[in-house]
Amino acid sequence: MGMTMTQKILAAHSGLDKVKAGDLIEARLDLVLGNDITSPVAINVMSGMDVKDVFDKDKIALVMDHFIPNKDIKSAEHCKCVREFARKHDITNYFDVGQMGIEHALLPEKGLVVAGNVVIGADSHTCTYGALGAFSTGVGSTDMAAGMATGKAWFKVPSALKIVLKNKPAEWISGKDVILHLIGKIGVDGALYKSLEFVGDGIKHLSIDDRFSISNMAIEAGAKNGIFPVDDIAAQYMKEHSDKEYTVYEADEDAVYDETIEIDLSTLKPTVSFPHLPENTKTIDNVGEIKIDQAVIGSCTNGHITDLRIAAQILKGKKVAKDVRCIIIPATQEIYLQAIKEGLAEIFITAGAVMSTPTCGPCLGGYMGILAAGERCISTTNRNFVGRMGHVDSEVYLSSPAVAAASAVTGFITDPASL
Amino acid sequence: MGMTMTQKILAAHSGLDKVKAGDLIEARLDLVLGNDITSPVAINVMSGMDVKDVFDKDKIALVMDHFIPNKDIKSAEHCKCVREFARKHDITNYFDVGQMGIEHALLPEKGLVVAGNVVIGADSHTCTYGALGAFSTGVGSTDMAAGMATGKAWFKVPSALKIVLKNKPAEWISGKDVILHLIGKIGVDGALYKSLEFVGDGIKHLSIDDRFSISNMAIEAGAKNGIFPVDDIAAQYMKEHSDKEYTVYEADEDAVYDETIEIDLSTLKPTVSFPHLPENTKTIDNVGEIKIDQAVIGSCTNGHITDLRIAAQILKGKKVAKDVRCIIIPATQEIYLQAIKEGLAEIFITAGAVMSTPTCGPCLGGYMGILAAGERCISTTNRNFVGRMGHVDSEVYLSSPAVAAASAVTGFITDPASL
Repeated sequence: MGMTMTQKILAAHSGLDKVKAGDLIEARLDLVLGNDITSPVAINVMSGMDVKDVFDKDKIALVMDHFIPNKDIKSAEHCKCVREFARKHDITNYFDVGQMGIEHALLPEKGLVVAGNVVIGADSHTCTYGALGAFSTGVGSTDMAAGMATGKAWFKVPSALKIVLKNKPAEWISGKDVILHLIGKIGVDGALYKSLEFVGDGIKHLSIDDRFSISNMAIEAGAKNGIFPVDDIAAQYMKEHSDKEYTVYEADEDAVYDETIEIDLSTLKPTVSFPHLPENTKTIDNVGEIKIDQAVIGSCTNGHITDLRIAAQILKGKKVAKDVRCIIIPATQEIYLQAIKEGLAEIFITAGAVMSTPTCGPCLGGYMGILAAGERCISTTNRNFVGRMGHVDSEVYLSSPAVAAASAVTGFITDPASL
Repeated sequence: MGMTMTQKILAAHSGLDKVKAGDLIEARLDLVLGNDITSPVAINVMSGMDVKDVFDKDKIALVMDHFIPNKDIKSAEHCKCVREFARKHDITNYFDVGQMGIEHALLPEKGLVVAGNVVIGADSHTCTYGALGAFSTGVGSTDMAAGMATGKAWFKVPSALKIVLKNKPAEWISGKDVILHLIGKIGVDGALYKSLEFVGDGIKHLSIDDRFSISNMAIEAGAKNGIFPVDDIAAQYMKEHSDKEYTVYEADEDAVYDETIEIDLSTLKPTVSFPHLPENTKTIDNVGEIKIDQAVIGSCTNGHITDLRIAAQILKGKKVAKDVRCIIIPATQEIYLQAIKEGLAEIFITAGAVMSTPTCGPCLGGYMGILAAGERCISTTNRNFVGRMGHVDSEVYLSSPAVAAASAVTGFITDPASL
């Protein structure tokens, strides 16, 4: 009985020849991640532990991204706490205002995560790095503290769902539509504590940014991680961004999966998750007339350069509807700079959108676009829970950048193909 | 006994041939301004008045700028209130996310204020438009409500200080240094309820943006307004931005001033206001070693394109110091776009600064760079009161964009000439 890709990575990091679903193992960590919300808690926990220093100052990443530039005194104090910890322990990968970006876009961009790595992060969307063939998953701040101290973490080895992606998607169909479609199909607990292992000939039609979106939202189906095989596209990305050596793990031919799900990418339509769960999906032809007040294009899910290019393609020469606030948030400083160089920023501003500094901001109701009662937002972010982006009586609709940009132009949730 | 420039404008707007300091008059208003903080209060007051509509839908400007894109639910509700009022009364000049900017940069840019106007705004820095030869002053939200309803406001006619600006300032000396120097000289109540009337051959060496900075901070000396004569530079600015007709008022030769103060611009040095009052000024050679945590370049005082050009000139090819967060905030979308087109944005990001959407943000402790206890910020904003930018134990040092940018590079408050 063979192992899945995830299981092989975990086995290799535990010094075991073989693991199987349900095994409790202790794995060596290649990177431990925290942000400005979760790190202060972990730092506090670690201060109560009998350890003097972190396990490896090069293998910890502390990314200030949720509420910076600081939105209030509390967030300023949190960042200050992490900043002082980073100085004290000489943490190599501390990222503050100006060097920073949203953690899950930043770490791959900086080459800190590569194929075959095991990464934990005190943030639920840490699963993003599966796009590069790494095992990565979100943990609590206590696990982050233990990880920083010991360089190890306990895991229950997950079983897996095999997701077979077939054929080529149509124009305007992105990774976001793929993952929303999948979550709509299996539900927000459809992959509870399982790996989503993506395979199939359709993958070659998905850019690395598409894959980041898909792996990023694995957690929204309850998955432990969401992982892709390492092909030329992934290898090329790592070559451009990292000088770390990496290891490619492949699932055994006789690997065991709980279930196999096939998705024919060529049949997908732009997909929107209605309030208040990502599983409440409708294809764009079934959306009806939904007036919006705000459109957010950004986040760890869809703040990559590919996402901005798509948004710019739609907004070019057009205007954001009079009653709509359109907020574009490049995920990192590097992406922001690229958006300026390529002329995307100019397109956005000319269209009447605003472009924010990189931040998680509105995605989790932090700042930079919080909703009042009764307001509706189409958003490329990853969660549309009650009150997620502001007032409990506001609504968030999740979509791809193409749908969000098209909707910004018309003021209603709109099929980009109809413009 | 003649009238000052301010008195002449007020007389003309009151249907009087003559006014003198201390007279109580009722003046016709050319524009009534409110923002996202003050307008909801005014709207509430107006709803209790016996009026059905505003006096003139074209002569009210409602600018969402302090906390937008909305920083929290409360600010979202405030904006929603103003948005609905603007729709109900068909207010021509309602500015929301994407069309907006910081009010005192936006109104002149949109051509809504010209020479000879009388403007009230429910924001203390409404005095900014004196740069264009207008009488403008800050009022409370109740006065704003009355202004919106009647198109008139009561004033006590101010006496004046005559500020004679002589000669040409040296490199790196901007309008901000002029006004900080003046406030340092006369104190934060040195012009209490008086007009600051600027005259002299030095004015021709000050750009319109320099003059906006100077008039903007008139209130920081307690002044009712701060006003410049209309010369070719001001005329050119109005020609480029407005199709409104304007009237140039000149002080009578025998106008009476409480005092005349001469400033030789050629002797000015870069000037910094130490915590916690704008009057606590030191010239850059007397600053000593002041380590900073943050540099803010922006606000209604110094978020103009000239300010950004100076900052870019200093930051080009350099890096923001490792421990400094440098936050650049163009005052309007138009300035933001111009900063992109001129390559300034690229310089800022490459240097390791962040560029925010237009907002008042950190200036008044709103968001986008709030300080933790013990932190210090050099800032081109207009107030450094206790807790103004965050924690009560933080400190704000006011300066020009040149000093702020130079300080961002070194990490200490720095003379730009020393770089």
